[in-house]
Amino acid sequence: MKPYVVGIDIGGTNTVFGIVDARGNVIASSSIKTAKHSDVNDYINELSEALDNLLESNDAADKINGIGVGAPNANFFTGCVENPANLPWNGEIPLAQMLKDRFNVPVAITNDANAAAIGEMTYGVARGMKDFIMITLGTGVGSGIVANGQLIYGHDGFAGELGHVTVKPNNGRMCGCGRTGCLEAYCSATGVARTAREFLETRTDPSRLRDIPIEDITSKDVYDAAVLGDKLAKEIFQYTGDIMGRAFCNFIAFSSPEAIVLFGGLAKSGDLLMKPIQESIDRNIMSAFKGKTKLLLSELKDSDAAVLGASALAWEAR
Amino acid sequence: MKPYVVGIDIGGTNTVFGIVDARGNVIASSSIKTAKHSDVNDYINELSEALDNLLESNDAADKINGIGVGAPNANFFTGCVENPANLPWNGEIPLAQMLKDRFNVPVAITNDANAAAIGEMTYGVARGMKDFIMITLGTGVGSGIVANGQLIYGHDGFAGELGHVTVKPNNGRMCGCGRTGCLEAYCSATGVARTAREFLETRTDPSRLRDIPIEDITSKDVYDAAVLGDKLAKEIFQYTGDIMGRAFCNFIAFSSPEAIVLFGGLAKSGDLLMKPIQESIDRNIMSAFKGKTKLLLSELKDSDAAVLGASALAWEAR
Repeated sequence: MKPYVVGIDIGGTNTVFGIVDARGNVIASSSIKTAKHSDVNDYINELSEALDNLLESNDAADKINGIGVGAPNANFFTGCVENPANLPWNGEIPLAQMLKDRFNVPVAITNDANAAAIGEMTYGVARGMKDFIMITLGTGVGSGIVANGQLIYGHDGFAGELGHVTVKPNNGRMCGCGRTGCLEAYCSATGVARTAREFLETRTDPSRLRDIPIEDITSKDVYDAAVLGDKLAKEIFQYTGDIMGRAFCNFIAFSSPEAIVLFGGLAKSGDLLMKPIQESIDRNIMSAFKGKTKLLLSELKDSDAAVLGASALAWEAR
Repeated sequence: MKPYVVGIDIGGTNTVFGIVDARGNVIASSSIKTAKHSDVNDYINELSEALDNLLESNDAADKINGIGVGAPNANFFTGCVENPANLPWNGEIPLAQMLKDRFNVPVAITNDANAAAIGEMTYGVARGMKDFIMITLGTGVGSGIVANGQLIYGHDGFAGELGHVTVKPNNGRMCGCGRTGCLEAYCSATGVARTAREFLETRTDPSRLRDIPIEDITSKDVYDAAVLGDKLAKEIFQYTGDIMGRAFCNFIAFSSPEAIVLFGGLAKSGDLLMKPIQESIDRNIMSAFKGKTKLLLSELKDSDAAVLGASALAWEAR
């Protein structure tokens, strides 16, 4: 087996890629702008040249075992990115095949949350676990589910949309997916900002958050205020954690994971968020599962996580 | 490989067991009373003798590949039945080991819903499927989840408690598990009877169900009335199907199964229940999953299903 793999993380703004060794060290990495090219062929050309350069300057051109790609709406089974809302290309894009044609190594592709789960299992806090759920808390809420040591892709490659389970069956918030009451509408970074606006509009108690124009409030503002002891801001985290804990109880009833691992910007809120989640789980969990599932924070370094996760996929790519 | 397996289904009242061939034919079967013995050793003695007799009278004593057992609270990993509420024994009962000591063949054990899922995958409507969810609708709501062609047991052997996901976060009905708002409290046979009582008490419109003493109403009464065109009874099935469909949308977001297979008494309500469920799924499903997951009825014969399901487990027992 060759000593390295390549991980490519395709985000709406940047595409980050790196060379990774078997111990999870990112040997070298670089990036290009994703949105620069409206034609996906031009994009692949630029990406391939940039990756070629990175490989050559690190004497790694013939030492690559495979390439793993994390991208929105990526389908592991077909190797295609399908109608990605945040990328500049439409339809089914055979990204895995396009990269295989260029580099002549196996290429595997999956969505970002699945890539994060595999990264966590290969290099992070879920090492050695056969059953865990990765929850990514960013602009949206994503998930990667591992059971029996394998990622669950479902029959069509799209399993693990836990951001879109319904947590408020009645009178729930509109979600970006077109439905109402989804977990993502409450527990993403944007969901927390929406909660802040809702609390500020419907309540009259003082808060540091009232100094910020209401439409500009971000989850970071809520975090900053809560750290300074702002009562309303802390209640926003309580509210968010309560909903998340209830949802996690349902996830636990489904696959009884050893751990739920949180990753992403919002997860950095630490105890402000983790404590309310844990309390909500303890309050709402079915007795058969009580105290059995750990709530953990990702151990992957932020700057490397996306590339590491994608690269982990490449070790098993065929 | 030897030609037969044995399936044992341990229920609260009866223990049914049979000899099954590789094509899913139940060659012969018999049963004993489960609750007769307060000492589990006496129970195993009677069961073993009865099974010995069945094997000998069918010339099958040396032709058994293994034994599969379906039982409440059975743990696949430990081979134990753990504190079963509906069985007369307490604590952790090493049932698999006890049977292995008697028959000197591999014994595997799992809960009844998981056994049904394996039976459906081996002999029934889910043949060839790698991703499906089995929902058993009886006194309670049970489930067996198959992903990547494998049953999901979770890290502790207790995955698949889908009867206890929360479908009514606010003001939900008390559930047998001690929590409120569980799927089981609405969509089991007892749940349907509770809905009937709730509807009759809170509404004034006429119904055939008003001829039955309210505490005696069963889901079968509701079915009989609905078949005769009773409007309120039909609305009870609508209400039940709507809740079930919403819950199924969350299950689909989790594992994106090729099918959800319904089994058990209530599933025999046919279109009265299936149509509202399907309509609810179509109304509530996330667009990425629209029209992708089949809603199916079990194909296993009722009389054989439990034994078949348990026996299917035995082919892979070690």
